[in-house]
Amino acid sequence: MGYQEFKIEGRNAVIEALRSGKPIDKLYILDGCQDGPINTIKKEAKKGDTILKFVTKEVLDRMSETGKHQGVIAECAAYEYSEVKDILENARKKGEDPFIFLLDNIEDPHNLGAIIRTANLAGAHGVIIPKNRAVGLTATVARTSAGALNYTPVAKVTNLSKTIEELKKEGLWFVCADMGGTEMYKLNLKGPIGLVIGNEGEGVGRLVKEKCDMVASIPMKGDIDSLNASVAAGVLAYEIVRQRLS
Amino acid sequence: MGYQEFKIEGRNAVIEALRSGKPIDKLYILDGCQDGPINTIKKEAKKGDTILKFVTKEVLDRMSETGKHQGVIAECAAYEYSEVKDILENARKKGEDPFIFLLDNIEDPHNLGAIIRTANLAGAHGVIIPKNRAVGLTATVARTSAGALNYTPVAKVTNLSKTIEELKKEGLWFVCADMGGTEMYKLNLKGPIGLVIGNEGEGVGRLVKEKCDMVASIPMKGDIDSLNASVAAGVLAYEIVRQRLS
Repeated sequence: MGYQEFKIEGRNAVIEALRSGKPIDKLYILDGCQDGPINTIKKEAKKGDTILKFVTKEVLDRMSETGKHQGVIAECAAYEYSEVKDILENARKKGEDPFIFLLDNIEDPHNLGAIIRTANLAGAHGVIIPKNRAVGLTATVARTSAGALNYTPVAKVTNLSKTIEELKKEGLWFVCADMGGTEMYKLNLKGPIGLVIGNEGEGVGRLVKEKCDMVASIPMKGDIDSLNASVAAGVLAYEIVRQRLS
Repeated sequence: MGYQEFKIEGRNAVIEALRSGKPIDKLYILDGCQDGPINTIKKEAKKGDTILKFVTKEVLDRMSETGKHQGVIAECAAYEYSEVKDILENARKKGEDPFIFLLDNIEDPHNLGAIIRTANLAGAHGVIIPKNRAVGLTATVARTSAGALNYTPVAKVTNLSKTIEELKKEGLWFVCADMGGTEMYKLNLKGPIGLVIGNEGEGVGRLVKEKCDMVASIPMKGDIDSLNASVAAGVLAYEIVRQRLS
Protein backbone atom coordinates (compact mmCIF):
# COMPACT_ATOMS: atom_id res chain seq x y z
CA MET A 1 0.00 0.00 0.00
CA GLY A 2 1.15 3.55 -0.59
CA TYR A 3 0.42 6.68 -2.54
CA GLN A 4 2.99 8.53 -4.60
CA GLU A 5 3.15 11.43 -6.99
CA PHE A 6 5.62 11.50 -9.85
CA LYS A 7 6.38 13.23 -13.13
CA ILE A 8 6.44 11.99 -16.72
CA GLU A 9 8.56 14.12 -19.05
CA GLY A 10 8.90 14.33 -22.83
CA ARG A 11 6.45 14.01 -25.69
CA ASN A 12 6.43 10.27 -26.36
CA ALA A 13 6.34 9.32 -22.71
CA VAL A 14 3.39 11.63 -22.08
CA ILE A 15 1.47 10.49 -25.18
CA GLU A 16 1.98 6.86 -24.18
CA ALA A 17 0.84 7.54 -20.61
CA LEU A 18 -2.30 9.28 -21.86
CA ARG A 19 -3.12 6.49 -24.33
CA SER A 20 -2.61 3.76 -21.75
CA GLY A 21 -5.22 5.47 -19.56
CA LYS A 22 -2.81 6.32 -16.73
CA PRO A 23 -4.53 9.03 -14.65
CA ILE A 24 -2.71 12.32 -15.20
CA ASP A 25 -3.65 15.10 -12.82
CA LYS A 26 -1.87 18.05 -14.38
CA LEU A 27 -0.18 18.61 -17.67
CA TYR A 28 2.34 21.46 -18.08
CA ILE A 29 2.80 22.50 -21.70
CA LEU A 30 5.14 25.10 -23.18
CA ASP A 31 3.04 28.18 -23.91
CA GLY A 32 2.60 28.88 -27.61
CA CYS A 33 3.78 25.43 -28.68
CA GLN A 34 1.54 24.24 -31.53
CA ASP A 35 3.26 21.36 -33.33
CA GLY A 36 1.84 17.92 -34.11
CA PRO A 37 2.84 15.91 -31.01
CA ILE A 38 1.86 18.74 -28.65
CA ASN A 39 -1.53 19.04 -30.34
CA THR A 40 -2.00 15.28 -30.02
CA ILE A 41 -1.20 15.55 -26.31
CA LYS A 42 -3.69 18.39 -25.85
CA LYS A 43 -6.39 16.43 -27.69
CA GLU A 44 -5.80 13.25 -25.68
CA ALA A 45 -5.67 15.19 -22.42
CA LYS A 46 -9.02 16.84 -23.08
CA LYS A 47 -10.73 13.44 -23.24
CA GLY A 48 -9.96 12.88 -19.56
CA ASP A 49 -9.99 14.81 -16.36
CA THR A 50 -6.53 16.35 -16.81
CA ILE A 51 -5.88 19.99 -15.95
CA LEU A 52 -3.84 21.77 -18.67
CA LYS A 53 -1.42 24.54 -17.72
CA PHE A 54 0.48 26.59 -20.26
CA VAL A 55 3.78 27.76 -18.83
CA THR A 56 7.09 29.31 -19.89
CA LYS A 57 10.25 27.38 -20.70
CA GLU A 58 11.76 28.60 -17.41
CA VAL A 59 8.97 26.97 -15.39
CA LEU A 60 9.38 23.66 -17.24
CA ASP A 61 13.16 23.78 -16.80
CA ARG A 62 12.73 24.32 -13.08
CA MET A 63 10.20 21.48 -12.74
CA SER A 64 12.13 19.01 -14.86
CA GLU A 65 13.97 16.17 -13.16
CA THR A 66 15.48 14.71 -16.32
CA GLY A 67 16.34 17.95 -18.11
CA LYS A 68 14.62 16.53 -21.22
CA HIS A 69 11.03 17.70 -21.00
CA GLN A 70 10.66 18.66 -24.71
CA GLY A 71 8.01 21.20 -23.74
CA VAL A 72 5.74 18.91 -21.73
CA ILE A 73 5.62 17.52 -18.19
CA ALA A 74 2.80 15.44 -16.71
CA GLU A 75 2.07 15.08 -13.01
CA CYS A 76 0.66 11.68 -12.11
CA ALA A 77 -0.42 9.80 -9.05
CA ALA A 78 0.29 6.16 -8.40
CA TYR A 79 -1.28 4.05 -5.72
CA GLU A 80 -0.53 0.50 -4.81
CA TYR A 81 -3.89 -1.11 -4.18
CA SER A 82 -4.47 -3.65 -1.45
CA GLU A 83 -6.29 -6.96 -1.76
CA VAL A 84 -9.56 -7.76 0.00
CA LYS A 85 -7.70 -10.37 2.06
CA ASP A 86 -5.34 -7.65 3.35
CA ILE A 87 -8.36 -5.76 4.67
CA LEU A 88 -9.62 -8.86 6.51
CA GLU A 89 -6.11 -9.44 7.83
CA ASN A 90 -6.04 -5.83 9.07
CA ALA A 91 -9.17 -6.52 11.16
CA ARG A 92 -7.80 -9.84 12.41
CA LYS A 93 -4.53 -8.25 13.54
CA LYS A 94 -6.46 -5.67 15.55
CA GLY A 95 -8.67 -8.37 17.04
CA GLU A 96 -11.79 -6.64 15.78
CA ASP A 97 -14.86 -7.68 13.79
CA PRO A 98 -14.27 -6.60 10.19
CA PHE A 99 -15.79 -3.23 9.25
CA ILE A 100 -15.46 -2.50 5.54
CA PHE A 101 -16.75 0.30 3.30
CA LEU A 102 -17.87 -0.73 -0.21
CA LEU A 103 -18.37 2.14 -2.64
CA ASP A 104 -20.71 1.43 -5.52
CA ASN A 105 -19.40 3.86 -8.15
CA ILE A 106 -18.66 7.07 -6.31
CA GLU A 107 -17.90 9.56 -9.09
CA ASP A 108 -16.71 12.73 -7.38
CA PRO A 109 -13.05 12.58 -6.24
CA HIS A 110 -13.84 14.95 -3.32
CA ASN A 111 -16.49 12.54 -2.09
CA LEU A 112 -14.16 9.56 -2.51
CA GLY A 113 -11.42 11.32 -0.54
CA ALA A 114 -13.79 12.41 2.22
CA ILE A 115 -15.21 8.88 2.50
CA ILE A 116 -11.75 7.30 2.82
CA ARG A 117 -11.02 9.92 5.51
CA THR A 118 -14.22 8.95 7.33
CA ALA A 119 -13.45 5.23 6.96
CA ASN A 120 -10.11 5.79 8.65
CA LEU A 121 -11.54 7.76 11.59
CA ALA A 122 -14.55 5.49 12.09
CA GLY A 123 -12.11 2.62 12.52
CA ALA A 124 -13.00 0.76 9.32
CA HIS A 125 -10.41 -1.77 8.18
CA GLY A 126 -10.51 -0.89 4.52
CA VAL A 127 -12.41 0.43 1.52
CA ILE A 128 -13.42 -1.56 -1.57
CA ILE A 129 -14.10 0.17 -4.87
CA PRO A 130 -15.10 -1.29 -8.25
CA LYS A 131 -12.61 -1.37 -11.12
CA ASN A 132 -14.83 0.22 -13.75
CA ARG A 133 -16.79 3.42 -14.06
CA ALA A 134 -15.94 4.86 -10.65
CA VAL A 135 -13.25 7.45 -10.01
CA GLY A 136 -9.78 6.12 -9.17
CA LEU A 137 -7.25 7.35 -6.65
CA THR A 138 -6.10 10.68 -8.10
CA ALA A 139 -4.19 13.51 -6.45
CA THR A 140 -7.51 15.16 -5.57
CA VAL A 141 -8.65 12.02 -3.76
CA ALA A 142 -5.35 11.82 -1.89
CA ARG A 143 -5.56 15.48 -0.85
CA THR A 144 -9.23 15.26 0.24
CA SER A 145 -8.50 12.10 2.22
CA ALA A 146 -6.24 14.25 4.44
CA GLY A 147 -3.62 11.52 4.64
CA ALA A 148 -6.02 8.62 5.23
CA LEU A 149 -4.95 7.03 1.92
CA ASN A 150 -1.62 6.25 3.57
CA TYR A 151 -3.27 4.26 6.35
CA THR A 152 -6.56 2.81 5.21
CA PRO A 153 -6.14 0.04 2.61
CA VAL A 154 -8.16 0.43 -0.59
CA ALA A 155 -8.88 -2.60 -2.77
CA LYS A 156 -10.19 -2.55 -6.32
CA VAL A 157 -12.48 -5.40 -7.42
CA THR A 158 -14.00 -6.41 -10.75
CA ASN A 159 -17.43 -7.25 -9.45
CA LEU A 160 -18.80 -5.77 -6.25
CA SER A 161 -21.69 -8.28 -5.99
CA LYS A 162 -19.30 -11.20 -6.23
CA THR A 163 -17.02 -9.67 -3.59
CA ILE A 164 -20.02 -9.30 -1.28
CA GLU A 165 -20.84 -13.00 -1.75
CA GLU A 166 -17.28 -13.99 -0.94
CA LEU A 167 -17.19 -11.79 2.14
CA LYS A 168 -20.47 -13.27 3.35
CA LYS A 169 -18.63 -16.60 3.57
CA GLU A 170 -16.22 -14.82 5.95
CA GLY A 171 -19.17 -13.98 8.19
CA LEU A 172 -19.84 -10.39 7.17
CA TRP A 173 -23.30 -8.87 7.03
CA PHE A 174 -24.05 -6.16 4.50
CA VAL A 175 -26.03 -2.99 4.92
CA CYS A 176 -26.65 -0.51 2.15
CA ALA A 177 -27.97 3.00 2.39
CA ASP A 178 -31.15 3.70 0.48
CA MET A 179 -34.40 5.54 0.85
CA GLY A 180 -37.33 3.34 1.79
CA GLY A 181 -35.18 1.16 4.02
CA THR A 182 -35.49 0.62 7.75
CA GLU A 183 -34.57 3.60 9.90
CA MET A 184 -30.92 2.97 10.73
CA TYR A 185 -31.38 3.31 14.50
CA LYS A 186 -33.70 0.27 14.44
CA LEU A 187 -31.20 -2.07 12.74
CA ASN A 188 -28.66 -4.24 14.47
CA LEU A 189 -25.40 -3.09 12.93
CA LYS A 190 -23.04 -4.83 15.33
CA GLY A 191 -20.64 -7.60 14.36
CA PRO A 192 -18.66 -8.08 11.13
CA ILE A 193 -20.16 -5.61 8.70
CA GLY A 194 -19.86 -4.19 5.19
CA LEU A 195 -21.33 -0.73 4.62
CA VAL A 196 -22.35 -0.17 0.99
CA ILE A 197 -22.54 3.43 -0.24
CA GLY A 198 -24.16 4.16 -3.58
CA ASN A 199 -23.40 6.47 -6.45
CA GLU A 200 -24.13 10.20 -6.01
CA GLY A 201 -27.02 10.30 -8.46
CA GLU A 202 -28.40 6.78 -8.73
CA GLY A 203 -27.75 5.36 -5.27
CA VAL A 204 -26.86 1.69 -4.85
CA GLY A 205 -27.16 -0.46 -7.99
CA ARG A 206 -29.96 -3.05 -8.09
CA LEU A 207 -27.69 -6.12 -8.25
CA VAL A 208 -25.58 -4.92 -5.33
CA LYS A 209 -28.66 -3.97 -3.31
CA GLU A 210 -30.11 -7.47 -3.76
CA LYS A 211 -27.00 -8.94 -2.14
CA CYS A 212 -27.36 -6.77 0.96
CA ASP A 213 -28.85 -8.20 4.15
CA MET A 214 -30.24 -4.88 5.32
CA VAL A 215 -31.31 -1.60 3.76
CA ALA A 216 -30.79 1.31 6.13
CA SER A 217 -32.31 4.72 5.70
CA ILE A 218 -31.25 7.95 7.31
CA PRO A 219 -34.29 9.85 8.65
CA MET A 220 -34.95 12.86 6.42
CA LYS A 221 -37.04 15.71 7.72
CA GLY A 222 -36.34 18.31 5.06
CA ASP A 223 -37.56 19.55 1.73
CA ILE A 224 -34.87 18.21 -0.56
CA ASP A 225 -33.98 14.70 -1.68
CA SER A 226 -30.79 13.41 -0.19
CA LEU A 227 -27.61 14.13 1.72
CA ASN A 228 -24.26 14.59 0.01
CA ALA A 229 -22.76 11.10 -0.51
CA SER A 230 -19.82 11.65 1.83
CA VAL A 231 -22.07 13.09 4.56
CA ALA A 232 -24.45 10.12 4.22
CA ALA A 233 -21.50 7.74 4.48
CA GLY A 234 -20.33 9.55 7.63
CA VAL A 235 -23.74 9.48 9.30
CA LEU A 236 -24.19 5.75 8.63
CA ALA A 237 -20.63 4.86 9.58
CA TYR A 238 -21.05 6.60 12.91
CA GLU A 239 -24.32 4.79 13.62
CA ILE A 240 -22.25 1.61 13.25
CA VAL A 241 -19.57 3.10 15.54
CA ARG A 242 -22.23 3.99 18.12
CA GLN A 243 -23.68 0.49 18.14
CA ARG A 244 -20.19 -1.07 18.34
CA LEU A 245 -19.33 1.12 21.33
CA SER A 246 -22.55 0.49 23.24
CA MET B 1 -35.51 34.49 1.64
CA GLY B 2 -34.42 33.36 -1.79
CA TYR B 3 -31.44 32.76 -4.00
CA GLN B 4 -31.04 34.28 -7.46
CA GLU B 5 -28.43 34.48 -10.15
CA PHE B 6 -28.16 37.53 -12.38
CA LYS B 7 -25.85 39.36 -14.77
CA ILE B 8 -24.10 42.72 -14.57
CA GLU B 9 -23.08 44.14 -17.94
CA GLY B 10 -20.80 46.98 -19.01
CA ARG B 11 -17.51 48.30 -17.71
CA ASN B 12 -18.61 50.82 -15.11
CA ALA B 13 -21.31 48.59 -13.65
CA VAL B 14 -18.84 45.71 -13.30
CA ILE B 15 -16.08 47.89 -11.79
CA GLU B 16 -18.55 49.27 -9.27
CA ALA B 17 -19.82 45.83 -8.35
CA LEU B 18 -16.28 44.57 -7.81
CA ARG B 19 -15.31 47.59 -5.69
CA SER B 20 -18.44 47.35 -3.53
CA GLY B 21 -17.43 43.77 -2.69
CA LYS B 22 -20.45 42.14 -4.36
CA PRO B 23 -19.56 38.46 -4.85
CA ILE B 24 -19.03 37.81 -8.55
CA ASP B 25 -18.80 34.16 -9.53
CA LYS B 26 -17.74 34.42 -13.15
CA LEU B 27 -16.47 37.26 -15.28
CA TYR B 28 -16.65 37.01 -19.07
CA ILE B 29 -14.20 39.33 -20.82
CA LEU B 30 -13.69 39.92 -24.54
CA ASP B 31 -10.57 37.98 -25.53
CA GLY B 32 -7.63 40.20 -26.43
CA CYS B 33 -9.15 43.31 -24.89
CA GLN B 34 -6.36 45.21 -23.07
CA ASP B 35 -7.50 48.77 -22.44
CA GLY B 36 -7.49 50.65 -19.13
CA PRO B 37 -10.95 49.84 -17.75
CA ILE B 38 -10.69 46.16 -18.72
CA ASN B 39 -7.28 45.91 -17.05
CA THR B 40 -8.74 47.53 -13.93
CA ILE B 41 -11.55 44.94 -13.96
CA LYS B 42 -9.06 42.07 -14.32
CA LYS B 43 -6.95 43.43 -11.47
CA GLU B 44 -9.93 43.89 -9.14
CA ALA B 45 -11.30 40.46 -10.05
CA LYS B 46 -8.04 38.74 -9.19
CA LYS B 47 -8.23 40.04 -5.61
CA GLY B 48 -11.31 37.90 -5.01
CA ASP B 49 -12.57 34.46 -5.82
CA THR B 50 -13.86 35.33 -9.29
CA ILE B 51 -13.33 32.98 -12.22
CA LEU B 52 -12.17 34.84 -15.36
CA LYS B 53 -13.19 33.59 -18.79
CA PHE B 54 -11.93 35.11 -22.01
CA VAL B 55 -14.50 34.72 -24.76
CA THR B 56 -15.31 35.97 -28.26
CA LYS B 57 -17.64 38.86 -29.06
CA GLU B 58 -20.22 36.35 -30.32
CA VAL B 59 -20.38 34.62 -26.94
CA LEU B 60 -20.83 37.96 -25.13
CA ASP B 61 -23.49 39.05 -27.61
CA ARG B 62 -25.39 35.81 -27.04
CA MET B 63 -25.15 36.10 -23.22
CA SER B 64 -26.07 39.79 -23.08
CA GLU B 65 -29.52 40.75 -21.87
CA THR B 66 -29.07 44.50 -22.39
CA GLY B 67 -27.13 44.41 -25.67
CA LYS B 68 -24.62 46.82 -24.09
CA HIS B 69 -21.94 44.61 -22.57
CA GLN B 70 -18.92 46.72 -23.71
CA GLY B 71 -16.77 43.58 -23.65
CA VAL B 72 -17.57 42.44 -20.10
CA ILE B 73 -20.35 40.51 -18.37
CA ALA B 74 -20.33 39.42 -14.71
CA GLU B 75 -22.39 36.56 -13.30
CA CYS B 76 -23.44 37.20 -9.70
CA ALA B 77 -25.47 35.51 -7.05
CA ALA B 78 -27.83 37.32 -4.74
CA TYR B 79 -29.35 35.90 -1.63
CA GLU B 80 -31.84 37.53 0.64
CA TYR B 81 -30.67 36.65 4.14
CA SER B 82 -33.09 35.87 6.94
CA GLU B 83 -33.00 37.23 10.47
CA VAL B 84 -32.33 35.10 13.53
CA LYS B 85 -35.90 35.78 14.66
CA ASP B 86 -37.22 34.27 11.40
CA ILE B 87 -35.39 31.05 12.27
CA LEU B 88 -36.98 30.95 15.73
CA GLU B 89 -40.36 31.70 14.14
CA ASN B 90 -39.80 28.80 11.73
CA ALA B 91 -39.41 26.42 14.70
CA ARG B 92 -42.42 27.91 16.47
CA LYS B 93 -44.66 27.47 13.43
CA LYS B 94 -43.69 23.81 13.23
CA GLY B 95 -44.30 23.38 16.97
CA GLU B 96 -40.76 22.08 17.46
CA ASP B 97 -37.90 22.91 19.80
CA PRO B 98 -35.50 25.17 17.87
CA PHE B 99 -32.58 23.35 16.23
CA ILE B 100 -30.08 25.79 14.71
CA PHE B 101 -26.69 25.36 13.05
CA LEU B 102 -24.07 28.05 13.80
CA LEU B 103 -21.02 28.02 11.53
CA ASP B 104 -17.90 29.59 12.98
CA ASN B 105 -16.08 30.68 9.81
CA ILE B 106 -16.49 27.83 7.37
CA GLU B 107 -14.20 28.76 4.48
CA ASP B 108 -14.84 26.21 1.76
CA PRO B 109 -17.99 26.90 -0.29
CA HIS B 110 -18.45 23.14 -0.90
CA ASN B 111 -18.51 22.54 2.85
CA LEU B 112 -20.91 25.43 3.41
CA GLY B 113 -23.27 24.10 0.74
CA ALA B 114 -23.11 20.52 2.06
CA ILE B 115 -23.77 21.74 5.63
CA ILE B 116 -26.84 23.75 4.58
CA ARG B 117 -28.03 20.61 2.75
CA THR B 118 -27.54 18.56 5.93
CA ALA B 119 -29.27 21.22 8.06
CA ASN B 120 -32.31 20.99 5.81
CA LEU B 121 -32.52 17.18 5.92
CA ALA B 122 -31.80 16.90 9.64
CA GLY B 123 -34.78 19.15 10.23
CA ALA B 124 -32.86 22.17 11.52
CA HIS B 125 -34.79 25.44 11.42
CA GLY B 126 -31.98 27.59 10.10
CA VAL B 127 -28.27 28.29 9.76
CA ILE B 128 -26.39 31.25 11.22
CA ILE B 129 -23.10 32.42 9.71
CA PRO B 130 -20.84 35.32 10.74
CA LYS B 131 -20.60 38.43 8.57
CA ASN B 132 -16.83 38.59 8.32
CA ARG B 133 -14.09 36.24 7.19
CA ALA B 134 -16.30 33.28 6.31
CA VAL B 135 -17.44 32.43 2.80
CA GLY B 136 -20.74 33.97 1.68
CA LEU B 137 -23.52 32.44 -0.34
CA THR B 138 -22.02 32.09 -3.81
CA ALA B 139 -23.22 30.06 -6.79
CA THR B 140 -21.00 27.17 -5.63
CA VAL B 141 -22.68 27.15 -2.23
CA ALA B 142 -26.11 27.21 -3.87
CA ARG B 143 -25.21 24.31 -6.17
CA THR B 144 -23.64 22.19 -3.41
CA SER B 145 -26.65 22.79 -1.17
CA ALA B 146 -28.72 20.87 -3.76
CA GLY B 147 -31.62 23.28 -3.43
CA ALA B 148 -31.60 23.52 0.38
CA LEU B 149 -30.75 27.23 0.16
CA ASN B 150 -34.29 27.80 -1.10
CA TYR B 151 -35.84 26.21 2.00
CA THR B 152 -33.53 26.57 4.97
CA PRO B 153 -33.19 30.17 6.18
CA VAL B 154 -29.64 31.49 6.55
CA ALA B 155 -28.96 34.51 8.77
CA LYS B 156 -25.75 36.55 8.85
CA VAL B 157 -24.69 38.04 12.18
CA THR B 158 -21.94 40.44 13.22
CA ASN B 159 -20.88 38.59 16.33
CA LEU B 160 -21.51 34.90 16.82
CA SER B 161 -20.79 34.98 20.60
CA LYS B 162 -23.34 37.74 21.09
CA THR B 163 -25.93 35.84 19.06
CA ILE B 164 -25.34 32.77 21.23
CA GLU B 165 -25.98 34.86 24.35
CA GLU B 166 -29.20 36.23 22.92
CA LEU B 167 -30.40 32.78 21.90
CA LYS B 168 -29.66 31.43 25.37
CA LYS B 169 -32.29 33.86 26.64
CA GLU B 170 -34.71 32.08 24.28
CA GLY B 171 -33.95 28.81 26.04
CA LEU B 172 -31.43 27.30 23.65
CA TRP B 173 -28.50 25.17 24.78
CA PHE B 174 -25.29 25.22 22.76
CA VAL B 175 -23.03 22.35 21.84
CA CYS B 176 -19.84 22.73 19.86
CA ALA B 177 -17.75 20.07 18.22
CA ASP B 178 -14.18 19.83 19.39
CA MET B 179 -11.60 17.24 20.25
CA GLY B 180 -11.17 16.60 23.92
CA GLY B 181 -14.87 17.09 24.62
CA THR B 182 -17.33 14.55 25.97
CA GLU B 183 -18.17 11.67 23.66
CA MET B 184 -21.32 12.86 21.90
CA TYR B 185 -23.34 9.74 22.75
CA LYS B 186 -22.99 10.59 26.44
CA LEU B 187 -24.41 14.11 26.17
CA ASN B 188 -28.06 15.07 26.45
CA LEU B 189 -28.69 16.82 23.15
CA LYS B 190 -32.48 16.98 23.38
CA GLY B 191 -34.49 20.18 23.65
CA PRO B 192 -33.85 23.57 22.02
CA ILE B 193 -30.32 23.37 20.69
CA GLY B 194 -27.67 25.26 18.75
CA LEU B 195 -24.99 23.16 17.05
CA VAL B 196 -21.73 25.09 16.57
CA ILE B 197 -19.39 23.90 13.80
CA GLY B 198 -15.87 25.28 13.66
CA ASN B 199 -13.58 26.38 10.88
CA GLU B 200 -11.93 23.68 8.73
CA GLY B 201 -8.43 24.29 10.04
CA GLU B 202 -8.73 25.89 13.45
CA GLY B 203 -11.97 24.43 14.77
CA VAL B 204 -14.27 26.53 16.95
CA GLY B 205 -12.88 29.91 18.06
CA ARG B 206 -12.02 30.33 21.73
CA LEU B 207 -14.59 33.07 22.47
CA VAL B 208 -17.38 31.08 20.82
CA LYS B 209 -16.35 27.87 22.56
CA GLU B 210 -16.49 29.58 25.97
CA LYS B 211 -20.13 30.45 25.34
CA CYS B 212 -21.06 26.83 24.63
CA ASP B 213 -22.75 24.72 27.33
CA MET B 214 -21.30 21.46 26.04
CA VAL B 215 -18.30 20.35 24.04
CA ALA B 216 -19.03 17.19 22.05
CA SER B 217 -16.44 15.00 20.49
CA ILE B 218 -16.89 12.43 17.78
CA PRO B 219 -15.06 9.19 18.65
CA MET B 220 -11.99 8.87 16.43
CA LYS B 221 -10.35 5.49 15.98
CA GLY B 222 -8.05 6.24 13.07
CA ASP B 223 -4.59 7.50 12.28
CA ILE B 224 -5.39 10.98 11.02
CA ASP B 225 -6.62 14.10 12.78
CA SER B 226 -10.16 15.00 11.95
CA LEU B 227 -13.18 14.48 9.75
CA ASN B 228 -14.05 16.79 6.88
CA ALA B 229 -16.06 19.73 8.33
CA SER B 230 -19.27 18.86 6.48
CA VAL B 231 -19.03 15.18 7.46
CA ALA B 232 -18.44 16.13 11.12
CA ALA B 233 -21.46 18.46 10.98
CA GLY B 234 -23.55 15.61 9.55
CA VAL B 235 -22.45 13.08 12.16
CA LEU B 236 -23.21 15.49 15.05
CA ALA B 237 -26.48 16.70 13.56
CA TYR B 238 -27.69 13.12 13.26
CA GLU B 239 -26.76 12.33 16.85
CA ILE B 240 -29.10 15.21 17.74
CA VAL B 241 -31.75 13.75 15.39
CA ARG B 242 -31.37 10.31 17.01
CA GLN B 243 -31.81 11.71 20.50
CA ARG B 244 -34.79 13.80 19.40
CA LEU B 245 -36.46 10.73 17.88
CA SER B 246 -35.90 8.43 20.85
